Parts: sequence; structure tokens; C-alpha cells
Amino acid sequence: MKSIKASAPATVANVSCGFDIFGFAVEAPADEVIVTLTDKPGVTITKIIGDDGRLPLEASKNTCGVAVLEFLKAVNSKYGAEIILYKNLPLGSGMGSSAASSAAALVAINELHGNPLTREQLLPFAMESERIACGSAHADNVAPSLLGGFVLIRGYAPLDVATIPTPANLFCTLVHPHLELKTEDSRRVLKPTIPIKDAITQWGNIAGMVVGLMKPDYGLIQRSLNDVVAEPIRSVLIPGFYTIKEEAIKAGALGCGISGSGPTIFALSTERTIAQTVGEAMQKQFDLLQLKSDVFVSKINGEGAMILKG
Amino acid sequence: MKSIKASAPATVANVSCGFDIFGFAVEAPADEVIVTLTDKPGVTITKIIGDDGRLPLEASKNTCGVAVLEFLKAVNSKYGAEIILYKNLPLGSGMGSSAASSAAALVAINELHGNPLTREQLLPFAMESERIACGSAHADNVAPSLLGGFVLIRGYAPLDVATIPTPANLFCTLVHPHLELKTEDSRRVLKPTIPIKDAITQWGNIAGMVVGLMKPDYGLIQRSLNDVVAEPIRSVLIPGFYTIKEEAIKAGALGCGISGSGPTIFALSTERTIAQTVGEAMQKQFDLLQLKSDVFVSKINGEGAMILKG
Repeated sequence: MKSIKASAPATVANVSCGFDIFGFAVEAPADEVIVTLTDKPGVTITKIIGDDGRLPLEASKNTCGVAVLEFLKAVNSKYGAEIILYKNLPLGSGMGSSAASSAAALVAINELHGNPLTREQLLPFAMESERIACGSAHADNVAPSLLGGFVLIRGYAPLDVATIPTPANLFCTLVHPHLELKTEDSRRVLKPTIPIKDAITQWGNIAGMVVGLMKPDYGLIQRSLNDVVAEPIRSVLIPGFYTIKEEAIKAGALGCGISGSGPTIFALSTERTIAQTVGEAMQKQFDLLQLKSDVFVSKINGEGAMILKG
Repeated sequence: MKSIKASAPATVANVSCGFDIFGFAVEAPADEVIVTLTDKPGVTITKIIGDDGRLPLEASKNTCGVAVLEFLKAVNSKYGAEIILYKNLPLGSGMGSSAASSAAALVAINELHGNPLTREQLLPFAMESERIACGSAHADNVAPSLLGGFVLIRGYAPLDVATIPTPANLFCTLVHPHLELKTEDSRRVLKPTIPIKDAITQWGNIAGMVVGLMKPDYGLIQRSLNDVVAEPIRSVLIPGFYTIKEEAIKAGALGCGISGSGPTIFALSTERTIAQTVGEAMQKQFDLLQLKSDVFVSKINGEGAMILKG
């Protein structure tokens, strides 16, 4: 039966001010899958490489398994699927690890069926798999991983997603310290109410971010990359966060914040060389805390998940 | 001594989702002033036409007086000024009445001094006069009245204002029922905290509104014109609000909400004829409640305050 290889990239959700509504895709790292159609119904995950045996092989408990099961059900497929997952994204990193696996598997299984569904139509299946991974069917990682670019999740009832055009010169630095937070845990820390004053600050920055990206106006992006809602609470779980942020900005970043629910930290810069210098400055701080870390520098990824070969 | 006539338009602050951060200017109604330089320092308001004697003539208690006093102090002027104010905007209407008077007076006094300051530099003086009018130095009326267009107030510390490009086909209907709310009173009704869930809904709509305006994407504007924070609380002070909103949307408006803190209601439409039909439908509802009302239909005003003659 036919096999297809696909990849889907890491994503930065929230992007400082845009808690639960913003997310963008980067170029690396990316998860890869090989999906093979089978005559027998159901989904089998035959192998996962790179997770140190930590992810479940049972399809109904694995994000890419759930996504493919949902797809097969929705298109009323007579086929089943076997999946090999190359897990290149670190787990619990705040880079949308679970989302990348489902996005890759979804574009592969869709391609194997002759692309009956659009990327947007694949979204609900990926969201369903997020529910398995972290307890809520959020879209701020799966949408950019599937669609590429900088994505707004305007709302969920019904799902309303829009791509925000970004300037050509916008580079992302991701620094991933080797410590793990569960999205479920770090979400739980947020308070159920916020002061209206903070909400107003946040929505000023959200609007500023969109205007800054679309005009583009880098100064406005810079001034808007602030989070008074989640960052003050979540940052306590990331050793040295504020020093690292300060160093990133000193090194020339427009701004710096927590990627998703952390512990990965992202920074945005207007040049690749600056983004690299920023990454070195950030990593140096983790070094001082004797925390190993990985640095990834890339442009914003306008493509999202892609087929690698037929 | 030299005299100059200037006008400044009514404005819609908040624009549903953008509580305290969005405002736009319309073409009518507009306040007008005639400002005359005097050799003797200080500001005298010689006459106010159209306010039924309700506004103070004392310069330090009148918004256009305060704005001009602040300007003269800031540029260290050797002159004083006399002001005649044609008050065309209804007081306490939610159309930025106090802001329009100060904006008109400021562009006039600036012109009389040879325009030493930019429009942006005039903003703080107008904000100071808002403090007199309603107890807080907010900018969401004065900024669009001075600068024109659809304006974002990203933040206040320091003041950060950006103009949001709008599509050519966007028309505003304003319906002003003859009842009066004080900004100070209607602001007081808002709660000091809001549920994070509502805050997230609101910031999704805020971002959607900006993306919708800038792309443009009228469907996205339509879906984003919702307010879960201020409208549910403020609308109780406006008789028939939800019926009127429903009728506006039935008549073809993209959306409908409270202008500023009300009681004026605004609606946005993609055509002038639709905006007119929408206005009639809204007014009909006020008629049924035996409330007199005025209807104004115009494009978004890209110019803002202007000099009428030298």
C-alpha cells in the first residue's frame, strides 16, 4: 500500500500578549511521520523514534494516532493506517510538540486519500488530539503547524482562524532549556479572573502587535511584545527568566517571552544574525544556571506542515 | 489680531470589542470654533452657541479652554486667546463631544502660532481637557478627532497611538437618542475584574477587528464586532438596545454597538445606502419607545480636525 512522509514544524503559541489567540510556525525543529495506508481498518503506531519510549504507541492515546483516527472516521475511509513517528521536538517543551505530530500525520493521511479536505478542515482533528495531550482542544499550536505563518485564533464557537501577514524580516530564536512542564500544569496556575486594567493593557498590545506585523512597524511590534497576564505567573517556573529576557533584548531582540506555556523562551529579531546573537546570549544565561539548552533560529515558516515524499 | 475657524468631528470610542483602545472619527456632526489671538495672556470663552447655556464659560472648566491654556503654556506663548464655540455635538452623547471641542480649538491655536506642534504633540493637551470633562485623561475620542481615521491607543505609559488603515467601503451609522449619560457615571458601572475567559474572547475579537480592517476582510470585521465586557453592563442604560442592535444587523449592518459609553449607538456597513437603511431601522425602534433620536451617516473620516478658514 501507499506510503507518504510528511513533516510539521514547531510553533510558538501566545507570543507574549496573545494568550490563547496567537501562534506562529518556525522552520525547525519539525516532527516527521511516515504514514502507510492499510486494508485493515484502525490505526497502528508501529514505531516512535526519538521519544525515549515515553509516548504511548496505542493510537487512541497518541496525538498523531487520534488525529488520524478522527480523519478516517470523518471521510468515512475504508482504509486504516500505520504510522512511524520521528519525534524531533522535545516533549513538554512549549514548542507545540504534540501539535506537530498530529499536523504531520494529518497532511500525510489527507494526501494518501487524494486531499479530500483543506488544511482548515483538518484543524478540528488536530484539536481533538490536543485534548488528549493536554486536556483542552486548543488550536494555537495546531493551527500554525498545519497552516503555517502567524495565526490568529479569533474564537472557538465556531472555530475562526485567520492568518496575519508578517514582514519578510522577522526571525525567531527559540531556546529550549532541558526541563519539562506539562501544559496542563502550567495552565492551571492562571487565575480565573484578571483586573480589567491588565486586560486593557493586554488588548492594547494585541492590537499593536497585529498593526505592527501588518504595516509593518517594528517599533510597534517591540512595544507590543509584553504580557501582563500569563508571563508574570508562568515565568516563576522558568529559572532565570527575567534575566534571560533582559539579555535577549540587550542583544538586539525586539522582544522575548515564553513560548506557549514554556519552558522554551522565544525572541523575535529583524535579522538572522541578530537572532543568532540573541540565542547565544540567552543560552549563556542557562549555562550559568547549569541548565543545558538547545537554540533554534529560523524565519517565520509560511508553509507549515508539508509532504516530504510520495 | 488673527482669527481662525476650525472644526473637529464626532468620534466612536471602544467600537464594541476595543474598550478603551479603539476609536474612529466620522464626518458629521462636528464642533466648530473661532479662535482669536489676543495680546493679553489667558483664555476667554466669549460665546458658546448650541449648548443651551449648559457648558461653563470659564476657560479652566471648559474642555476647549483647558486645551488651549495647556497649549499656550507648553509653547510658552506671549499671546492669549478668545474662543467662540459652535457646539454642534450633543452633550453626554457618547460621540466624543468634549473631545471634538478641544481638538478643534487645538488645531486652531496651533495654526495661529504657525503650527509649532504636530497633531500627535497636541494630543496630551486634549487629554488633559478630557480629565476635566470626565475625570480621566483618556485618548480614545481625542486621538481620532485630532488625527482622523481609525485609531489604536496601544497604551498610556508612555502614550502610544497608531492609525489602523481601513477599507474604502466602510460606513458608519450613528443614532443618538435624546437621553444623556455622563461618561463618569457609565464608567463607574464596570467591574474592577473580569473573567479570563471573557478577556480571551475580547482579545480574539480585537485582533480579528484589526486583521479584518487591514486585509480587508468584512466577514472577519463582522464576526469581531462583539463586546462581552462593557456592552452587557452599559447596555442596560440604553432602552431597547438589543432589539435595536438586532434590527441594525437585520437591515444589513456588519455589526452594531455602543458608541463610547453611550447612549449613542453606532453600526458599520459596507455601503452608504445600507448604512442609511440601518439608521432608519434603528431610529424606528427608538420611535416605538417614544424616544426622539438623530441619525448621522458618514464614511470613516480620515482627516480629523481641520482648519476651515484663516
